[in-house]
Amino acid sequence: MRMYDVIAKKRDGHELSTDEIYEFIDEYVKGDIPDYQASALLMAIFFNGMSEREILDLTMAMAASGEQVDLSPIEGIKVDKHSTGGVGDKTTLIVSPIVAACGVKVAKMSGRGLGHTGGTVDKLESIPGFKTDLDQEEFFNVVRKTGISVIGQSGNLTPADKKLYALRDVTATVESIPLIASSIMSKKLAAGSDCILLDVKTGSGAFMKTVEDSVKLAETMVKLGEGAGRRTCALITDMDVPLGNNIGNSLEVIEAVETLKGNGPKDLTHEAVQLAANMLRLADKGNEADCIDMVNKVIADGSALECLKAMVKAQHGDVSVIEDTDNFTKAKYSHDVLSDREGYIAHMNTEGCGIASVMLGAGRETLNSLIDMAAGIIIAKKTGDKVEKGDVLATLYADDEKLFEAAQKKYLESVEFSDSPVRRNPLIYAKVDRDGVRYTENV
Amino acid sequence: MRMYDVIAKKRDGHELSTDEIYEFIDEYVKGDIPDYQASALLMAIFFNGMSEREILDLTMAMAASGEQVDLSPIEGIKVDKHSTGGVGDKTTLIVSPIVAACGVKVAKMSGRGLGHTGGTVDKLESIPGFKTDLDQEEFFNVVRKTGISVIGQSGNLTPADKKLYALRDVTATVESIPLIASSIMSKKLAAGSDCILLDVKTGSGAFMKTVEDSVKLAETMVKLGEGAGRRTCALITDMDVPLGNNIGNSLEVIEAVETLKGNGPKDLTHEAVQLAANMLRLADKGNEADCIDMVNKVIADGSALECLKAMVKAQHGDVSVIEDTDNFTKAKYSHDVLSDREGYIAHMNTEGCGIASVMLGAGRETLNSLIDMAAGIIIAKKTGDKVEKGDVLATLYADDEKLFEAAQKKYLESVEFSDSPVRRNPLIYAKVDRDGVRYTENV
Repeated sequence: MRMYDVIAKKRDGHELSTDEIYEFIDEYVKGDIPDYQASALLMAIFFNGMSEREILDLTMAMAASGEQVDLSPIEGIKVDKHSTGGVGDKTTLIVSPIVAACGVKVAKMSGRGLGHTGGTVDKLESIPGFKTDLDQEEFFNVVRKTGISVIGQSGNLTPADKKLYALRDVTATVESIPLIASSIMSKKLAAGSDCILLDVKTGSGAFMKTVEDSVKLAETMVKLGEGAGRRTCALITDMDVPLGNNIGNSLEVIEAVETLKGNGPKDLTHEAVQLAANMLRLADKGNEADCIDMVNKVIADGSALECLKAMVKAQHGDVSVIEDTDNFTKAKYSHDVLSDREGYIAHMNTEGCGIASVMLGAGRETLNSLIDMAAGIIIAKKTGDKVEKGDVLATLYADDEKLFEAAQKKYLESVEFSDSPVRRNPLIYAKVDRDGVRYTENV
Repeated sequence: MRMYDVIAKKRDGHELSTDEIYEFIDEYVKGDIPDYQASALLMAIFFNGMSEREILDLTMAMAASGEQVDLSPIEGIKVDKHSTGGVGDKTTLIVSPIVAACGVKVAKMSGRGLGHTGGTVDKLESIPGFKTDLDQEEFFNVVRKTGISVIGQSGNLTPADKKLYALRDVTATVESIPLIASSIMSKKLAAGSDCILLDVKTGSGAFMKTVEDSVKLAETMVKLGEGAGRRTCALITDMDVPLGNNIGNSLEVIEAVETLKGNGPKDLTHEAVQLAANMLRLADKGNEADCIDMVNKVIADGSALECLKAMVKAQHGDVSVIEDTDNFTKAKYSHDVLSDREGYIAHMNTEGCGIASVMLGAGRETLNSLIDMAAGIIIAKKTGDKVEKGDVLATLYADDEKLFEAAQKKYLESVEFSDSPVRRNPLIYAKVDRDGVRYTENV
């Protein structure tokens, strides 16, 4: 295989063969194909796309490029979940213990936050002592014992995706559905679960800005999962407004705990229940209504919260902060962002809200940034809410008062007002599974 | 400027600003922009093209990336010529002395051959002692004294083009009119002549396979030349059959000398006369008919051949091989390729003929290959010719008999027969200048 010919073939709109795709991935990981040829191919894929067969080959080749976790030593059905990333999205912390409390296992590898979106691993590390770098034996044992374990992604998983993603990130070839779908699904396949629930976020805080694009991405990923023999479904959910009220690491753990106690904000609770119920559906635990009932039951009887506590304990975390979230170390300073006008919040630039939180110290601008676990934002008024002049729109938390001015400015720039009442978007736009797409009214 | 944003802008179909193009070239040459970002941009240009303004900016930026030759110390109008490359194309060796004999100076930098096409510098170096690496003072003095000098391209000319061309060559981004046009014209502008004649080859032995694409490329280059203040015109000429009969380095010098004596093959003679007359037209030496008369006159009276001899002498070459071409060292072996059928030659895959010649040792497969100056092919029958069984189609020349078998096979594969008479293509399809395109009947 000459890499030149592979690039020219894709450039000219032809389908690459299975062998060509596997050889490309293999030689690229080994360093035998240089970055400049890979980036030319990626740009040609950006323009000419890939057939379903090509995307499946690319995904399987990337999944096979490194370690592939075999979860079969853990009894029972294992369900994974992936969110395409958003602001205030702490659903993994809520749905994983819910699903585990219903008897379905979650053996999950999560990522760290980068840019305006947070990462589950960072959030969990706000719990003092919590270890996310368990070895495989301990990881499996935590799942066996508590039904759930969440750890950081292993360094050996999908090296092809790691290398290609880093290249896409600097060559403007991220925004391609075949490349996004294969990147996500190669990691999910290598992580070994039987079922995969995908949460595809849509709107100003998400990677996909339109429902149409999100559905397209979801369809592609569901086909990949099913094509690889995993039960897969996707919900298209709203990220045109932060999810829940809290943004920041320990602030999001606190909100997750409240939601597991039944005291969470309405939007977050509704979305978490839907996600968890769909994970149970994938694991064949019953029909839709049954699954929702099971979810509500394990919240109401406290068993979901107990699962979270059990995992925290098993992963060496200080469970006292879960038992009483007041035990979390607080930020040194807080600052209320006040409204200088009355009206209705018409829209929130959700990416902007996420960036304001990063400016307070809650996130990473580069992979090496340090995170302030207590920093962040608690939102008081969201899209659709009525606001009087002088109302608190949000409270900012940081360890350095000097950070408030710029973060407040960014936050206020992200909030648009209207004089007339505003309707919020639906929380869940659509569900995509092997039977196709069903839009909100039917989800 | 963030290179990422420049790539994304072009990827999304927007026009790059002048500053963005100049900064890209500047930083790429310095090594501050890595190859993998440059190749992504090149592929985006392949797909989305460039506006006339962008192409002119790119060309000027590349021309300005290194040394720009100032030919003003040489009195009079200097005319340059560029061929997009073909098989058997020795016209530079013929038209340069013709033009010089008519009083227009040619101070030309030429390239070496690569792949199936030859290079003027290699051909000249088949003349014993001929130096193509003159310094600027000697180069200028040869032009002043003889009216003509042809040397190798200076190492300092258009480093941006050198680096980008090498990258395009391995990333399947060569075949893009904005990139081809800017690459050629940046070199021509940096080489400093007042007027530029472009010979855009079309057909099976050329880079451009269709007249339509050739006209598009020619129009783009003529606009670039005129936009940069140089009188520029292009002829679209046929390369669907080798030009003249001889392929190979000293073989082509021999045929050029014969043509300057008025004994050249009809096709080569006609094309050389047209090219030379158009160079004189660019230099305002008269109307079309006058220019053709001047050209025919300097062939007939031997003054064009004298110019070639003068240049060879001035560049330290052994002029005895020009005075009597039998003095050229001959290849050790020759081999006749015979026809095993009768009929008419319907088509010659001209690239294939060029490759057969490379297989005999006449060309380079890689930049480091050594050339056998005496190797090559003399063609006896060309497209349109009637052939009897047993006729010699061509004679192969090499220093190693073992090379004949594979080269003959390649040559025979490149020749297609027909039972009925075949019409040859026109030699010159069109002329493109600042007034637009004129097709053959009017050239």
